[in-house]
Amino acid sequence: MKKTKYDLGPDERLDDLMFHGMKIFQNRKQFCFSLDAVLLAHFAHLKANAACVDLGTGTGVISLLLAARGAAKIEAVELNPVMADLASRSVAYNGLERVIAVHAGDYRRVGDFLPPGRFDLVVANPPYRQVSHGEVNELAGVAAARHEITANLGDVIAAAEYLLKFRGRLAIVHLPERLSEIIVRMSAAGIEPKRLRLAYPRIGKRPNMVLVEGAFGAKPGLFVEKPLIVHREDGAYTEDILQYYREPAADVELPDKKT
Amino acid sequence: MKKTKYDLGPDERLDDLMFHGMKIFQNRKQFCFSLDAVLLAHFAHLKANAACVDLGTGTGVISLLLAARGAAKIEAVELNPVMADLASRSVAYNGLERVIAVHAGDYRRVGDFLPPGRFDLVVANPPYRQVSHGEVNELAGVAAARHEITANLGDVIAAAEYLLKFRGRLAIVHLPERLSEIIVRMSAAGIEPKRLRLAYPRIGKRPNMVLVEGAFGAKPGLFVEKPLIVHREDGAYTEDILQYYREPAADVELPDKKT
Repeated sequence: MKKTKYDLGPDERLDDLMFHGMKIFQNRKQFCFSLDAVLLAHFAHLKANAACVDLGTGTGVISLLLAARGAAKIEAVELNPVMADLASRSVAYNGLERVIAVHAGDYRRVGDFLPPGRFDLVVANPPYRQVSHGEVNELAGVAAARHEITANLGDVIAAAEYLLKFRGRLAIVHLPERLSEIIVRMSAAGIEPKRLRLAYPRIGKRPNMVLVEGAFGAKPGLFVEKPLIVHREDGAYTEDILQYYREPAADVELPDKKT
Repeated sequence: MKKTKYDLGPDERLDDLMFHGMKIFQNRKQFCFSLDAVLLAHFAHLKANAACVDLGTGTGVISLLLAARGAAKIEAVELNPVMADLASRSVAYNGLERVIAVHAGDYRRVGDFLPPGRFDLVVANPPYRQVSHGEVNELAGVAAARHEITANLGDVIAAAEYLLKFRGRLAIVHLPERLSEIIVRMSAAGIEPKRLRLAYPRIGKRPNMVLVEGAFGAKPGLFVEKPLIVHREDGAYTEDILQYYREPAADVELPDKKT
């Protein structure tokens, strides 16, 4: 039997995204996506026919979910070639080649392959931890996804500043302890923080994720949204989270899927 | 009968602070304190023997509560002479003249009456709204307490920058929509935001107050606290709020009260 790009390699698996019937390739020895990415993909304000960039797409999960939500075009940038390959195969598997373009490149030099001032939305689920903080994972690919080894918060915001059109949006998910730094850096780059949502593992706990969206060239004034509670008291997902895994409304059309 | 400074003038009333048995003079035609001030007084990190400044003390409520919490010395600054008089009488009524000094002055010129770099804690419950936003109250005293007429966020932070010693803290209560501006301005003044708590009117609602504390000269890294929920589903105060109205533990000593 002829081998196809959809055959699973060593350590690979094909997971159900549980959204619009999509599937996603992952590799157990690389960074696998987590809830953070799902929350960001649903938090970002997505206007009709939006041109998007996904900085550090990893498995491609955020781009896939944005495509399902109706993004017109997404440039998905990934430095790690193993991950860029996984993302490309997932894009093809879901029949989204005309919507999502995967760039195996470095967003610290995004000007080499994407034009300035043309995008409506930039999303980033960047490495959370500074290199001086916490144990660095021994697997290089996983380490770069978790720690600011190949890119840091400043690189994300510099790339967004280059890419966004006037009033275009940067949406980011990060740790609460970096919130102040995110706001200061966004603001200094002219990307005014406009929306903030804190995600809490359950009621009565401290938040463990922040979702921040800024608009390029906007005036100050932050809309702090309702808390996003992830788990109910009994440990199950809350309705807020479950709605992200619902089948789409009938009027949402997706390209044909490869099977 | 001889008139004393504790007799009530027109429109005045003597309210129960419901904390350490303290009472407070208020004037119906002036700005009366609200829950915001109580939350700030309890949010601020108060180390032993702290020297404090209360910028725009109004009725003096925050200074009274900080004194009850154990502050060694508080300089309470108030521009409006009617309010400064109320605050002074409340301080005397509660026997706190040796702890709280009321300055009828302008904190935009705080250098005229307080020394630089000497304080452990600066607190401010400043006017919330920019002059261009919202209807301005016709009573001048109330208007200045609500709108940034006589002082704005920049003035608060500039005064704190002048007053704080190294690692001294600025604690502020404000509207969520100003959070980004607070963080950017604090950070620019070298007062690094270290603690954030959002207050919600009840579970599932957007926050309506933010409590932010910065430390002068500290490194970045924000601790986002548990949400502060004000009301239970049935409308009563939550346990989080009720604890601010409990009688003190027996080992807290307050000066004798005038009666």
